[in-house]
Amino acid sequence: GSTVSFGEKGQQKTEMKQTQPVAEGGDKEEKKEIASYWGVPPSRFTKEDGTEWKWNCFRIDLVLMVCSMKLKPWETYSADLSIDLKKHHLPATFLDKMAYWTVKALRLPTDLFFQRRYGCRAMMLETVAAVPGMVGGMLLHCKSLRRFEQSGGWIKTLLDEAENERMHLMTFMEVAKPKWYERALVITVQGVFLNAYFLGYIISPKFAHRMVGYLEEEAIHSYTEFLKELDKGNIENVPAPSIAIDYWRLPPTATLRDVVLVVRADEAHHRDVNHFASDIHYQGRELKEAPAPIGYH
Amino acid sequence: GSTVSFGEKGQQKTEMKQTQPVAEGGDKEEKKEIASYWGVPPSRFTKEDGTEWKWNCFRIDLVLMVCSMKLKPWETYSADLSIDLKKHHLPATFLDKMAYWTVKALRLPTDLFFQRRYGCRAMMLETVAAVPGMVGGMLLHCKSLRRFEQSGGWIKTLLDEAENERMHLMTFMEVAKPKWYERALVITVQGVFLNAYFLGYIISPKFAHRMVGYLEEEAIHSYTEFLKELDKGNIENVPAPSIAIDYWRLPPTATLRDVVLVVRADEAHHRDVNHFASDIHYQGRELKEAPAPIGYH
Ligand SMILES: [Fe+2]
Ligand SMILES: [Fe+2]
Ligand SMILES: [Fe+2]
Ligand SMILES: [Fe+2]
Repeated sequence: GSTVSFGEKGQQKTEMKQTQPVAEGGDKEEKKEIASYWGVPPSRFTKEDGTEWKWNCFRIDLVLMVCSMKLKPWETYSADLSIDLKKHHLPATFLDKMAYWTVKALRLPTDLFFQRRYGCRAMMLETVAAVPGMVGGMLLHCKSLRRFEQSGGWIKTLLDEAENERMHLMTFMEVAKPKWYERALVITVQGVFLNAYFLGYIISPKFAHRMVGYLEEEAIHSYTEFLKELDKGNIENVPAPSIAIDYWRLPPTATLRDVVLVVRADEAHHRDVNHFASDIHYQGRELKEAPAPIGYH
Repeated sequence: GSTVSFGEKGQQKTEMKQTQPVAEGGDKEEKKEIASYWGVPPSRFTKEDGTEWKWNCFRIDLVLMVCSMKLKPWETYSADLSIDLKKHHLPATFLDKMAYWTVKALRLPTDLFFQRRYGCRAMMLETVAAVPGMVGGMLLHCKSLRRFEQSGGWIKTLLDEAENERMHLMTFMEVAKPKWYERALVITVQGVFLNAYFLGYIISPKFAHRMVGYLEEEAIHSYTEFLKELDKGNIENVPAPSIAIDYWRLPPTATLRDVVLVVRADEAHHRDVNHFASDIHYQGRELKEAPAPIGYH
């Protein structure tokens, strides 16, 4: 019944040039076969100046990963490191304070559990952080469909945030291999947080975005501590994973320290976007009334 | 408590150049104020050749809509009209047949209700069609976080499909203003379909993608009928909505017929992607094992 076959080997290797470099020869023909009937070939991308887009990473273990991720040039970016890391939203209303103390309360067990293992801590943080953008984006998408109206770009902004956080997670997975019980913890926390945030966003998007704003403030703090440990030499400043070099357009000589710097800058941008979104709700407006900061990295 | 104020008027109008054209003067200052503290300004985009990206639409009613949607150049595209519209997946397994007849059964009441009102029919179709991509993308995102592994680009592909369908919906909303009971029907159907598809995707992604594949085949058929009615003169070939001209890079003189043509081509691409995804599952593989057709329009 199926119109493709993974097993059989194709003959025209030339047609698959686009997917190079491919680590294993066998995979090449298989991919050729899958694309054959439905005609969904991998695409070739060009840079802003018209030249072909090339991958920086050629480490065998990552080639397949990044290549099948197929980061398009415009999906990668140079992080804006000049962003103000100190901005803070003073909690004023009851809801603000609730959001603030929820985040502070969540930090306590995290501090106890991970202590100074900032690599694993970052991993945990990123699994949780990738949830709000996806949930918010999905809920706005459904709302947009129900009301037949546009979202002012906020769907895209929130989904982009989720993608950005997922890239953070992929990056730290390369750096810190988690133990089984840490993995189990992360899965549990994600499941609980996903449902809680889903409900929270339906009840009060104002509160939900404010909470994420504070979560990002904590993330900035956490990465600053990470940097301190790196500078003290307590954590080894290993070379940056290839995936990070591609995603943030880092030089090939980049190290873990450079990665933490760009990730921290990302978190500062998320902080701005989410406090901004909450502020819009505080004004009794809907998100779509203010243009979304698409491409704000 | 809030750090922005919508009410007060800002003084430096010059800083808001990027959001031009803005329909109402008052809005300009308000937007300035919102962006002020969190520093999330709207961005300026350039085309592939380096010149500034301009909007084609200047109809007052749409200016705010498209501008606040902020389609980036690479979010718009020229549809590939050469795609084969006749491709069909012959249902072979029991699951295939179930998917096929589910879609056929769903078509019956739609035929009865909308009959030859293809504008409203398209609207209904698009509200439903925008659900699977979002649900699938979200579930793959969560899976990616849980397993700490990449998705081979499938998250992006499915979310892009959802966005594409939402743009279809926005376009047809401009063409066919729905009556209140049609709106109510659409909301009900969406609510039921969202939950059903969510469950369906968890139980069997193989079935879910196959069903969407058949849904798209029906969509192609439906738009072909739409074109026939347009050619017969039963439906007036009005000028294309500005949003469609921007999104599909159509000439300013484009008509509804041109829009239906590009939308139909989109559906054919969705058909390929979803049958392809189902085929991968039929081979006992996971989606991430085959590179996703990102940017396949
Ligand atoms: Fe992050
Ligand atoms: Fe973040
Ligand atoms: Fe569609
Ligand atoms: Fe479609």
